[in-house]
Amino acid sequence: MHTRDLSHAIESDMPVFPGDPDVSVEPHATVDADGYRVSAVELGSHTGTHVDAPSHTEADGRAIDAVDVDRFAFDAVLADCTGMDPREAIERDALPATDADLLVVRTGWDEHWGEPTYLDHPFLAPDAAAFCVDQGYDVAVDALNVDPTPTDGGSDEAAEDEPAGFQAHHALLGANQLIFENLTDLSGLPDRFEVLAFPLALRAGDGSPVRVVARYE
Amino acid sequence: MHTRDLSHAIESDMPVFPGDPDVSVEPHATVDADGYRVSAVELGSHTGTHVDAPSHTEADGRAIDAVDVDRFAFDAVLADCTGMDPREAIERDALPATDADLLVVRTGWDEHWGEPTYLDHPFLAPDAAAFCVDQGYDVAVDALNVDPTPTDGGSDEAAEDEPAGFQAHHALLGANQLIFENLTDLSGLPDRFEVLAFPLALRAGDGSPVRVVARYE
Repeated sequence: MHTRDLSHAIESDMPVFPGDPDVSVEPHATVDADGYRVSAVELGSHTGTHVDAPSHTEADGRAIDAVDVDRFAFDAVLADCTGMDPREAIERDALPATDADLLVVRTGWDEHWGEPTYLDHPFLAPDAAAFCVDQGYDVAVDALNVDPTPTDGGSDEAAEDEPAGFQAHHALLGANQLIFENLTDLSGLPDRFEVLAFPLALRAGDGSPVRVVARYE
Repeated sequence: MHTRDLSHAIESDMPVFPGDPDVSVEPHATVDADGYRVSAVELGSHTGTHVDAPSHTEADGRAIDAVDVDRFAFDAVLADCTGMDPREAIERDALPATDADLLVVRTGWDEHWGEPTYLDHPFLAPDAAAFCVDQGYDVAVDALNVDPTPTDGGSDEAAEDEPAGFQAHHALLGANQLIFENLTDLSGLPDRFEVLAFPLALRAGDGSPVRVVARYE
C-alpha cells in the first residue's frame, strides 16, 4: 500500500488567498523556559490545503462540523488537466464520468505555489461544475480556487470572457458538494485511489485546513 | 462499516491545558460583506483532540511534519480503564499485550470535559508507559494528559506519590512514539479497530490538533 501526502505545509507567512488571514506558527512554550514546546497558531479556515463547507459561499449552507465524518473518506478518480494556459477554463469534456465520489483535478499549478502566477490558475467552466454536480462528485484541485481568482496581485489580466464571482462554488456548495483546494503532488497517481481528508471540527466553521492523504496499491 | 468521530469540536473559549493559548474562531469575511465566509482561527498546537510530536517534550525530538504520513493510520486496541479514581495511576497490568500499533486507553474522563474535574484524570504509571514503549504502542487517551496535570485550577490535591513532570511523555516521545490526548466518545468501541488521525502539517510543529476517526465492521 502506497500512502502519499497531498498537502502543503502550514507555516508563518505562507501564501494565502487574497484578503485571507495571514498565517503564523510561533513558539508559545519552550523546552528551555517551560520544559515542553507548544506553538501558538493563527490561520484562516481556508489556509493551505483545505476544504470548503457549503456555508463558505451559501448563506444557509451546512457548516463543516455538520458534515458526517464518513463523508471525508473518498473513492477518488483523477482527471489530468495539465498543460493548460493561465486562466484557461476546464471544460466538461475534460472530466471523466465514473462512479467515484471525489474528482481530483490535476492542473499542475501547484508548481507555481508562492509565485504571483499561482493566482492565474485554470478554473472550472460552468458546464464542468454542473457536470460534477450531476455526477455527485466532490471536487479537489491542486490550485488556489475552482473559480477564477481576482487578479489583484496576479501576473495576468483576467480574460474578458471569464466568469465573475463564485459560479463553480455556488454550483457545487449549493448542491451540498464539497470542494478541496490547494492540493499538491498529484503527479503519477493512479486513475483511481482512496483519499482520506478529515478536517478539524471547527464549530459552525465554513471550512478547515486539512491533511489530504492518498492511498493505493 | 462504522465510522465514528472521536474528536472534540474546536470553538472559541473551549477548555485548554493550563497556560496554553486561548482558542478563538471568529468571522473574518462574511456573506453579507464579502459574498463568502472565512473564519480567523487562533489556537495552540495542543488544542482539543491533538497529537504530540516527539519535539513536544524532547529537546531534539522529531517535529510533527517530519513524521511519515502513513504513521497516522493505525491498527488500534482498546484498553478499558473506566471506573478509576481521580488522579489514580493506570498500571501496566491494566494494559493488553497485542500486535496493535496504537493503544487507545479509555478512562471515561471525557465526561468531565469543561469541568474543573477534567484536570484530575487518571494517568499512566511509569511502568505502564515503559510497557507501551516495549510494545511499540503509540498511545491515545480520552483525558487531558498521559501524565498528571498540575493542580492549579483542579478540584483535587495531587497525591503525594504522584510522579512529577512529564515522565510518561518523556518515556514515549523519547522513544519516538506518538501521544494523542483529549479523545472522546470511546464507549462501545470494539476491542480492535482502525484509527485514522492525520494531523495538520505544521512546519517544525510540536504537535497538532487532529480529527481522530475510528472505523470498524
